[in-house]
Amino acid sequence: MNYGRFASYEDFLKELEQFHGKMAPGGVLGLQMVNLAWELLPPGIEMDVICETRKCLTDAIQLLTPCTVGNHWLKVVDTGRFAAVFYDKRTGKGVRISLSTEKLKNFPVIHDWFFKLTPKKDQSLEAILGEICRAGYDILDHRPVQVDPQVFKPRDKTPPVVCPICGEAYPPAHGDRCRGCQGVTDGTFR
Amino acid sequence: MNYGRFASYEDFLKELEQFHGKMAPGGVLGLQMVNLAWELLPPGIEMDVICETRKCLTDAIQLLTPCTVGNHWLKVVDTGRFAAVFYDKRTGKGVRISLSTEKLKNFPVIHDWFFKLTPKKDQSLEAILGEICRAGYDILDHRPVQVDPQVFKPRDKTPPVVCPICGEAYPPAHGDRCRGCQGVTDGTFR
Repeated sequence: MNYGRFASYEDFLKELEQFHGKMAPGGVLGLQMVNLAWELLPPGIEMDVICETRKCLTDAIQLLTPCTVGNHWLKVVDTGRFAAVFYDKRTGKGVRISLSTEKLKNFPVIHDWFFKLTPKKDQSLEAILGEICRAGYDILDHRPVQVDPQVFKPRDKTPPVVCPICGEAYPPAHGDRCRGCQGVTDGTFR
Repeated sequence: MNYGRFASYEDFLKELEQFHGKMAPGGVLGLQMVNLAWELLPPGIEMDVICETRKCLTDAIQLLTPCTVGNHWLKVVDTGRFAAVFYDKRTGKGVRISLSTEKLKNFPVIHDWFFKLTPKKDQSLEAILGEICRAGYDILDHRPVQVDPQVFKPRDKTPPVVCPICGEAYPPAHGDRCRGCQGVTDGTFR
């Protein structure tokens, strides 16, 4: 097991709790998924990630890999599934790793936590984390994927321009006015 | 100046470089924005954030505040503008803080870095960071905002269900099949 930039499992757990705001079993599932990705992908590649959920998995990936939302190496395409695609950012060849609902049946503590069958007050965090560590890759599915070149094409480095409506800077590729003035934040805030 | 969970400016810079993958002046602009938010909002509130860009600002917010993409307290609504909304998660009352292209004219080093007028090889990171620290709030605009209740309503805690097509777990609010099987990842990977 590899912990990225953390020296140990305990160090990773501590930072996960600090960063994510609470201890999250899904972050430890994420640790297993990231490790499986490192095993399945060729060594030495530069890896980008597409995460299919906006949950603890996202934060585990941000902590364990160089990929964050803010550096664009991690993208979130929210299907609501506990899964992520790890791929070579030069070729788009990669692997999709997902939590297997079928295999979960062999791990009742994780199963009942994940499907919220155990009331929160009766859950033992220690028992859930322990079973996730014991389960390792045995609760995961994986398949090869090809990421679309549009996703990993080099980022547009064109300098920002000033929006004629709001006066703020924005990427000119967005059009003749910024997306804010195109209405993208309508229904979000005013 | 407050550095969130970091003991000093240097500690924040070090973690920003580690987490973001490189030193990012935008992350230090983010430090100013977050500090202004803390000054403008009432003390003691629980703050959520909407970030309008997927750039270094996102990562600065994730490091300095309890809000991350994976814990849902940080949302990205990508207008491409260097701005974020910081708000009370109980009421939606908050403040939008943005980089002022007008005020930037008084800070030529930041201006020329931001608008990519200085070739990379001629840029001095030290000079840019130094001017950002000296500028402080003098390059920022802010206005009060009301966030839509849809954005900060309590999260749906309904247990996941198994998708009849792919067999993976997903939130039932997404429909009779998961968003992946509804085609959300089409054009992203196959």
